[in-house]
Amino acid sequence: MAAPSLETVAAVLRHADAALEQSRENLFALLRIPSISAQPAHKEDCARAAEWCRSQLASLGFRATVHPTPGHPVVVAHHDGPADYTGPHILFYGHYDVQPVDPLELWHSPPFEPQLVDGPRGKRFVARGAVDDKGQVMMFMEALRAWHNAGGGIPARITVLIEGEEEVGSLNLEPFLEANKTALASDVALISDTGMWDVDTPAITTRLRGMTYAEVTLKAANRDLHSGLFGGSALNPINALTKILGELQDADGRIQLPGFYDRVKPVTNAQRAQWDALGFDEAAFLGGIGLSTPTGERGYSALERLWARPTADINGIWGGYIGTGSKTVIASEASAKISFRLVPDQDPDAVFEQFKRFVNDRLPPGATATFAGHTRSPGIEVNIDRPWVRAAQEALAEEYGRPAVLMGSGGSIPVVTSLRKVLGIDSLLMGFGLDDDQVHSPNEKFEQRCFHHGMRAHARLLARFAGG
Amino acid sequence: MAAPSLETVAAVLRHADAALEQSRENLFALLRIPSISAQPAHKEDCARAAEWCRSQLASLGFRATVHPTPGHPVVVAHHDGPADYTGPHILFYGHYDVQPVDPLELWHSPPFEPQLVDGPRGKRFVARGAVDDKGQVMMFMEALRAWHNAGGGIPARITVLIEGEEEVGSLNLEPFLEANKTALASDVALISDTGMWDVDTPAITTRLRGMTYAEVTLKAANRDLHSGLFGGSALNPINALTKILGELQDADGRIQLPGFYDRVKPVTNAQRAQWDALGFDEAAFLGGIGLSTPTGERGYSALERLWARPTADINGIWGGYIGTGSKTVIASEASAKISFRLVPDQDPDAVFEQFKRFVNDRLPPGATATFAGHTRSPGIEVNIDRPWVRAAQEALAEEYGRPAVLMGSGGSIPVVTSLRKVLGIDSLLMGFGLDDDQVHSPNEKFEQRCFHHGMRAHARLLARFAGG
Repeated sequence: MAAPSLETVAAVLRHADAALEQSRENLFALLRIPSISAQPAHKEDCARAAEWCRSQLASLGFRATVHPTPGHPVVVAHHDGPADYTGPHILFYGHYDVQPVDPLELWHSPPFEPQLVDGPRGKRFVARGAVDDKGQVMMFMEALRAWHNAGGGIPARITVLIEGEEEVGSLNLEPFLEANKTALASDVALISDTGMWDVDTPAITTRLRGMTYAEVTLKAANRDLHSGLFGGSALNPINALTKILGELQDADGRIQLPGFYDRVKPVTNAQRAQWDALGFDEAAFLGGIGLSTPTGERGYSALERLWARPTADINGIWGGYIGTGSKTVIASEASAKISFRLVPDQDPDAVFEQFKRFVNDRLPPGATATFAGHTRSPGIEVNIDRPWVRAAQEALAEEYGRPAVLMGSGGSIPVVTSLRKVLGIDSLLMGFGLDDDQVHSPNEKFEQRCFHHGMRAHARLLARFAGG
Repeated sequence: MAAPSLETVAAVLRHADAALEQSRENLFALLRIPSISAQPAHKEDCARAAEWCRSQLASLGFRATVHPTPGHPVVVAHHDGPADYTGPHILFYGHYDVQPVDPLELWHSPPFEPQLVDGPRGKRFVARGAVDDKGQVMMFMEALRAWHNAGGGIPARITVLIEGEEEVGSLNLEPFLEANKTALASDVALISDTGMWDVDTPAITTRLRGMTYAEVTLKAANRDLHSGLFGGSALNPINALTKILGELQDADGRIQLPGFYDRVKPVTNAQRAQWDALGFDEAAFLGGIGLSTPTGERGYSALERLWARPTADINGIWGGYIGTGSKTVIASEASAKISFRLVPDQDPDAVFEQFKRFVNDRLPPGATATFAGHTRSPGIEVNIDRPWVRAAQEALAEEYGRPAVLMGSGGSIPVVTSLRKVLGIDSLLMGFGLDDDQVHSPNEKFEQRCFHHGMRAHARLLARFAGG
């Protein structure tokens, strides 16, 4: 295959620069469609957003189709690239749906009327979906357009998959992947839905924590009791639940589930050194949310605790009387939701069983525990020796003039697990969001600088895939 | 003063027997008034119930008045008794208001259409308020009527006080007592709102536990956080709250507040022996609510734990996400309501301070705790050497042919505290309810046998007060 020449890449980048205003207008057109997947009233808007994406891709020479699902539709588009293309077949993943906008009164402008606003880092785009994920999808789309218009055509073999249910749990995505395995066969997924280290430092996310989310209900008496008449004789399930859950961590923050750490590997010294060199300021990180003292496992750095160590957080607890004033009741039951963030090699199913054993081992006589499982997903660690990771590192380093950080993320991205499970492919997570982008919150924004660099970095990465 | 003759007492009791059906009809008339104090729609019904009580008392020769309050009215009635009366001036206390009736669908008959039903112990009355407290008020009223009709008149100096807000916390009662101190001056209160030991064994309640009811809120970050992005660094207030409250009791059930037991006195050996002789079957007691193993302080009998030892029960707890499914949130705060049942000599205010210290001593860095206090009332122990206690013991022993048990109650009766505080008088708690009367629940009932014996016991007690 003929690799793109330096001149071609330069022409593509020049086009991307010259077309910035038009690219922004394209993004704004998509942002004006209120494609809130969670709200049935916006079903038609989701369909419109899907169709809008399809027509954009079609105009770039893709065979593009909107596929219905039991929920919102999925857009699939395919381009073979140059006839002699021998690089990896890329599956680009993004989503066109957005979060609800409430509380609306906290927005400074209508969430679906995108604004170009001056901020401390230059222009920014303010709208629901600006960065999550429409802005990040459009960076890739505009990179494709630059190649189409100024680079002699789409330079790589690309399948685009844009779903409309990411914000509501992607329930229909895995069945869709299963049903379209052949059409979606590819070598690696490229996902643009993550963040940078900071506005000047690009990043590739190579670690994601997994999760076991459990719910437990402790039952005691067969009805609510008067705490005066029964207190001192009848088991109180709230007292029992707090006693049990109060033992989740020891004084050093170590999680007490039996066998919980058996498969937790320490990070390599090289990885630790790289993270230490980032000079992460945990005090500033916590200061932003009104805290000052870190919690978590003793003996690990902040980034290790956030990216490479498992956690146990009680996400919700309830039982008894929770109205105003007082009621002297001994409740018949008490419940809690607990999530364990997992690192690679921990088995989410095994952790669920460990949690059940942890609770059952501590049950006082007369109490019974019932369990429900919610999300279960393994932690992910990207193999950084794969060629596409190197390609992305090079593209980012060229664009920013400094190396890309290999970051972890404390959160989970379920689609990464689905893509690995159903299509057998790894994901390359190259994103351009910032910590202060107000994702899922009022006044969500995307820095124009990030959008512009991101578009150019995607254009450079496409050249790399094509051997340039 | 001329004590009533045995013949007079016998005539009064014969009248009570002969008039049983009419007495029941009188009670049913009161039960038909839906005087639910908690529900504004029943404000007029409460006023009707008050007026009904007033007119009954007036018909018995009392100077009876309905007094408005900022809430529901209070009925006060007075009778001097015989001109030469030298016994104690009795303040009879009861309440005409009742609990709401929901869930209505669980009632087998309309709650305000009283039914005469056959049960395992003979006839019973089924209606809201049957035993709590209209039935118990009417036993006393019918005893007065028997004396009025067949005993030559009311035999003692009696002030009757019937309030209409007992089921909503008696908020206006203490101010009313304060404002009417002189009119209500008396020697002892007679309260008929408690229970028997069992259907054949009468009881006087001589111990009531007090209460300190506290609410605590732990705050950490200034907003809800994503548990993936912050888990392992940011303090989780639910984890912290469960850890703190999980330490409320040690493995022996001892409450860990500093100084909590300093003023808790052991019961006397004589008291313990009397309670042990009752042969309380804790397994049966717990079996009725679906439990089998008792909880509470190790080393004490069941009745001691229920009547003479303090407790710490978490009555409610809440924080984070409590809807269906899962949400990966680290909440910014978590709260709980905790009540401590107290025994005599424990200071409710001191216990509140002890609880605050207990929590604050265990606060992790970055957490703040705020506290709110609800009910605070001391435990009560009646001096059983007073003449009216002996009079009640004798009246009950005569009526039932067996001695009355001197019981404790694990609950609180706030009016006892108010009467002591404002009027400086002790209370004599002689009641005829049974454990299975479904107080506050659907199908509340009162055994006709209890009503009949109770009416006669009250008639006998009045004779005792008059020196008979």
